[in-house]
Amino acid sequence: MSLTDIALDAMGSDDAPGPEIRGAILACRAYPVRVHLIGPEAKLRAGLGVLGRRVPIEIVHTDEWITMEDKAAKAVREKRNSTMRLGLKMVKERRAAGFVSAGNTGAAMASAKMVLGALPGVERPALAMPLPTTTGSPCVLLDVGANVDCNVRNLAQFAIMGEMYARSVFKIEKPRVGLLSIGEEETKGNDLTREALQVMKQLPIRFIGNVEGRDLYSGNADVIVCDGFVGNVALKTSEGLARMVRDMLRESLMSTVSGRAGALLARRGFKEFKKRLDQSEYGGAPLLGVRGPCIIGHGSSDDRAILNGIRVAAEFAASGVTNRIEREFSASPVS
Amino acid sequence: MSLTDIALDAMGSDDAPGPEIRGAILACRAYPVRVHLIGPEAKLRAGLGVLGRRVPIEIVHTDEWITMEDKAAKAVREKRNSTMRLGLKMVKERRAAGFVSAGNTGAAMASAKMVLGALPGVERPALAMPLPTTTGSPCVLLDVGANVDCNVRNLAQFAIMGEMYARSVFKIEKPRVGLLSIGEEETKGNDLTREALQVMKQLPIRFIGNVEGRDLYSGNADVIVCDGFVGNVALKTSEGLARMVRDMLRESLMSTVSGRAGALLARRGFKEFKKRLDQSEYGGAPLLGVRGPCIIGHGSSDDRAILNGIRVAAEFAASGVTNRIEREFSASPVS
Repeated sequence: MSLTDIALDAMGSDDAPGPEIRGAILACRAYPVRVHLIGPEAKLRAGLGVLGRRVPIEIVHTDEWITMEDKAAKAVREKRNSTMRLGLKMVKERRAAGFVSAGNTGAAMASAKMVLGALPGVERPALAMPLPTTTGSPCVLLDVGANVDCNVRNLAQFAIMGEMYARSVFKIEKPRVGLLSIGEEETKGNDLTREALQVMKQLPIRFIGNVEGRDLYSGNADVIVCDGFVGNVALKTSEGLARMVRDMLRESLMSTVSGRAGALLARRGFKEFKKRLDQSEYGGAPLLGVRGPCIIGHGSSDDRAILNGIRVAAEFAASGVTNRIEREFSASPVS
Repeated sequence: MSLTDIALDAMGSDDAPGPEIRGAILACRAYPVRVHLIGPEAKLRAGLGVLGRRVPIEIVHTDEWITMEDKAAKAVREKRNSTMRLGLKMVKERRAAGFVSAGNTGAAMASAKMVLGALPGVERPALAMPLPTTTGSPCVLLDVGANVDCNVRNLAQFAIMGEMYARSVFKIEKPRVGLLSIGEEETKGNDLTREALQVMKQLPIRFIGNVEGRDLYSGNADVIVCDGFVGNVALKTSEGLARMVRDMLRESLMSTVSGRAGALLARRGFKEFKKRLDQSEYGGAPLLGVRGPCIIGHGSSDDRAILNGIRVAAEFAASGVTNRIEREFSASPVS
């Protein structure tokens, strides 16, 4: 069986390269992939140790990487041998089927746009975040931060790309696409969304009209479209609330002896709860609309998140969603 | 001891008038208030029963009220004897110190603007939602839905009103005021927030610059300013996520016998967790910038939420925040 080559930024996550090394080993054991770990060779070699010799992992050496503190635009321009640039170049030159990074999101997006380039007809690539829902099926929110000030045409393009992603990667036959607004009625929304609503009704997708913030998690929509400012606020608000809930739950349970005993007894349930809530199961957000799979994970990614990022990159590549978007946009009413 | 008169829309909440009647009785027992229950007399009288005779509750009869399904603008115009209009009229005529409703938010805001009117200098009244944070101190988010398309001046006014509310009602001496954006750096944000940032730096408040969605719950800011579209999305996203977490936690715990036993043992901890997370502790969102206290609660308000809404209305009235906003805006650089 042939292996799918995935390029992995080994220096992306907050605790890099630990999660990347362990995630790569796990991925090679679980899936038919060959992982190209990009980073400082000696360090990666040491981290891989004996385990790394038994799996198809290659090291691509570089001493340069972009940190979370780096200004994205400047770092992308100046760090010409960064892990991100090398990884994306492998995708461009077809030496890898996809690229994964848990590094600086702004820099990863800018690098992908520069190295891979946008697909013809795509005005603005968009970062698409799959979120868990009550029904168990993911909801894809886009854009979550690639494009801050958007026009109607941008939103319409996001709708089409998001729909294709949900269809190709999550195998949802007829994804329900909603427009994020502040009420279901057509008159609700701001100037941008009210106009976008009318345009999106004309698209060849299953458009369900306006949806609200609560629908990100209700399972009422498979794809939800918004500008990158609103999407980023919604995503980070969710992160903040999830963290507070976790902290409060722990504190409240640990404050009494019976609570501690209860928490212990309910351990399996809690674990399963955490797993269902955990975004790392989705392995990160793909940047849709560029020439090749680029999956961007959270800086706090652990082994499991990296493992899933590699899986998603391979699935994304196999799904042919990039080609589909390209075909669609060469003929689409909003291209 | 003299009682504070509070006008309560008895027909607002989804289960009205039950929560309103019980909440009013609880409030009269707990605080020095006289509650004017506004709604259909026979129904309210029956609901109050014997308990209602022992507390200072008055009934103000009307057969007209605005439902959740009503179009706000039309209903406000046409239902001239609605519970909302009568209650707000009592505030205007100084027969009540404040008004509370858990009804149609759009209609309550429109009614308040029409009946009470905006304070001189206030261009746009704003709905201010107190949110729970990790540190236990609330964070006030405004605007959460009164004003969809805002300009820089609107945001600056929200900052000043929110700061005064946090100071007067939550007794925070020097509230930290942040601008909701997508990164802390000054260059991050959309056209509106980048410009607003520069104006807000000049205001006579403790402005801490850009904050992110996760800061709604981190306790890093006491007041967070945004336009009503973004605020509404953030709030409803939070509601949706909180509901999903509750459902998932229950399901995950109930799926095993030891989990069920654990949940039982940890009951007190869960109850305390729910209470800390529960927005009803804050009793609803005041509409800042109108001539008099108007507190708008969630449609799903229960007895406890109504009780707290009445408490907040009385505290809001006693704090003199309305007068302070009026004074400030008659001399402020952004009025």
